[in-house]
Amino acid sequence: MPRQVRVIGIGTGSPAHVTGQAIAALRECDVFLVADKGEVKDELVAVRRSICEEFLDEGAYRIVPVTDPERGPDADRDRTAYRSGVDAWHAARAARYADIIANLPEGETVGFLVWGDPAIYDSTIRIVDAVAESMPLEVQVVAGLSAIQVLAAEHGIVLNGIGQPVHITTGRRLLDEWSADLGTVVVMLDGSLKCRELVGSAPDLVIHWGAYLGLPQQVLRSGRLADVIDDLVSLRADLREEHGWVMDTYALTVPSAPLLA
Amino acid sequence: MPRQVRVIGIGTGSPAHVTGQAIAALRECDVFLVADKGEVKDELVAVRRSICEEFLDEGAYRIVPVTDPERGPDADRDRTAYRSGVDAWHAARAARYADIIANLPEGETVGFLVWGDPAIYDSTIRIVDAVAESMPLEVQVVAGLSAIQVLAAEHGIVLNGIGQPVHITTGRRLLDEWSADLGTVVVMLDGSLKCRELVGSAPDLVIHWGAYLGLPQQVLRSGRLADVIDDLVSLRADLREEHGWVMDTYALTVPSAPLLA
Ligand SMILES: C[S@@+](CC[C@H](N)C(=O)[O-])C[C@H]1O[C@@H](n2cnc3c(N)ncnc32)[C@H](O)[C@@H]1O
Ligand SMILES: C[S@@+](CC[C@H](N)C(=O)[O-])C[C@H]1O[C@@H](n2cnc3c(N)ncnc32)[C@H](O)[C@@H]1O
Repeated sequence: MPRQVRVIGIGTGSPAHVTGQAIAALRECDVFLVADKGEVKDELVAVRRSICEEFLDEGAYRIVPVTDPERGPDADRDRTAYRSGVDAWHAARAARYADIIANLPEGETVGFLVWGDPAIYDSTIRIVDAVAESMPLEVQVVAGLSAIQVLAAEHGIVLNGIGQPVHITTGRRLLDEWSADLGTVVVMLDGSLKCRELVGSAPDLVIHWGAYLGLPQQVLRSGRLADVIDDLVSLRADLREEHGWVMDTYALTVPSAPLLA
Repeated sequence: MPRQVRVIGIGTGSPAHVTGQAIAALRECDVFLVADKGEVKDELVAVRRSICEEFLDEGAYRIVPVTDPERGPDADRDRTAYRSGVDAWHAARAARYADIIANLPEGETVGFLVWGDPAIYDSTIRIVDAVAESMPLEVQVVAGLSAIQVLAAEHGIVLNGIGQPVHITTGRRLLDEWSADLGTVVVMLDGSLKCRELVGSAPDLVIHWGAYLGLPQQVLRSGRLADVIDDLVSLRADLREEHGWVMDTYALTVPSAPLLA
C-alpha cells in the first residue's frame, strides 16, 4: 500500500483563507512534517501550528519539525552554481524527509502545510516527488491562496490590465527581465526592493506593495513608484527590525489610459 | 452611509474550494447580482446558485440576474479597437449595475460572486470601481482560488521552474508573446488551443491542460505538446459538443534538466 501524502496550501497565515478542501485534507493527516528554518521563521511555524489548532482536535495529530540541511549563501553565485546548489540542497532535504517518512507507523497519512499555494515558489512538491522515487506514495495536492492573491484583494485591484498579461518573478530576476510588454509584474522573494532601480529607467510605474499579508501585522502601501520607494525602503527596514523578519511582495504596473474615462 | 459591496472569489465551481473568509462574506450579503451571459453559460449561473445554497440559509438572500449589454464580435479587431470596444461595453455594464444598486433597499449589502479569483481576468472590480464614481460604495474584495491554481494542484505540479518566472496570458496574445525567457506560460481565454502553432517553432514544450476544473466533469491531460496537441484539439471539440460549453486553461513549460537527477 502506498503511503498517503497531502500537500496542503494553507494560505498566508489567516485561518479565514483556508478552503474547505484544505480543512478536509488536514483532517486526514496523522502527522505533519514542518520544515524548521531556524529562529527568524519560528513565527511561521507557530502560524502553521495555530492553523492546525483552529481546525483539528487536540491529540488527533502530531507535528514533527524537520531541520533543514545547511544551505550556503548564494547571493553572489552565478545562475548555474545557484541551480546546482539548490539541487543539492533539495536532494539532502528529500533524503531527510524520506528517512522520517519511512520510519512512521504504517498506515499513517503524512501532511505538509504549505505557505500560500504549493504551485508558487515552494519546494514541497519537488521534495515529495523526489521522496516518491525511493518509496511508493499517493500524493494529493490542495491549492491555497497565494500571497499574490491576498496582495491584490487587499488593495482591491485586478492584476492584469484589460487583455494584458501578468508576469510573476523573483527579486533576483527583476532588473534583467523587466519590460513593459510583460504586463503587470509581480515580484516575490525580493529581499531588498530591487524595483528601486527601475525608477528613472522604466516608464512611470505604479507599485502595490504588501507585507505580512493575511497576518495581524499586515501592512499595505501603494503609489507612483518614484514617489513612494524611499519611504518603502525605510518602512521595510523598520518592520524587519520591529518583528525580526519580514515577508513582502509587490505588483508593478504601467498605468494606462484610465478605464471608462 | 456608503453602500456595502462584497466582491467574492468563489473558486471554479467546487464548494470545497471556497475559503472561510468567502463564506463569511457571502453571509453578509442580502442580494447577489449575477451576470446573465445567455444560455451557454446557464450552467455557471447554476453553479453560483448552488454555492449560495450550500453555505446560506434559504430565504436569507436574493439572486438578481443582470443581463449583459450586447457585445459585438471582436475576434478580428485590432488591439486599439478591442480596447475601446471593451471599455464601451464595461461602461454600459457599469451603468446597468449602478441603476440596479441605486434602486435596492437602503442598508442592503450587495454581493458579486466571482468565478475563480477576482484579480485574474475578471471585470467585476473594474465595474464596481466605475459604479463607485456615481455613488458612495464601501468595497471588500475576497480572493478565491483561480483556475490556474486548480490546474496546478490537480496535476500536482509547481508552476515555476526553480528560480524561474511564471507568465499568465491570453490565447489572443500567446503566439506574439511566447519566448522561453517567460518561464512557464499559463494560457487562459483561449478558444482554440493556439499553442498548436508553437509546435515546431518553439523548443519541445510540455503542456498541462485542464477543462471544467473543480467541476464534476473535470478533465486533465498532459504530455509533450507535439505528441498530445491533436488529441487535445479533438477532445476539446467533443467536450464542447457534449456539454454545450467548455472552459479550459493550460500551462506550457520548457522541460529543463531533471531535478535531483
Ligand atoms: C518561498 S515564496 C512562497 C510563496 C507562497 N507559496 C505563496 O503562494 O504565496 C516566499 C515569498 O512569498 C511572498 N510571501 C509569502 N507570504 C507572504 C505574506 N504573508 N506577505 C507578503 N509576502 C508573502 C514573499 O515575496 C516571500 O519572499
Ligand atoms: C474570464 S476568465 C476568468 C478567470 C477566473 N477569474 C479565475 O481566476 O480562474 C475565464 C478563463 O478562465 C479559465 N477558467 C475559468 N474557469 C475554469 C475552469 N473551471 N476550468 C478550466 N479553465 C477555467 C479559462 O481559461 C477561461 O477562458
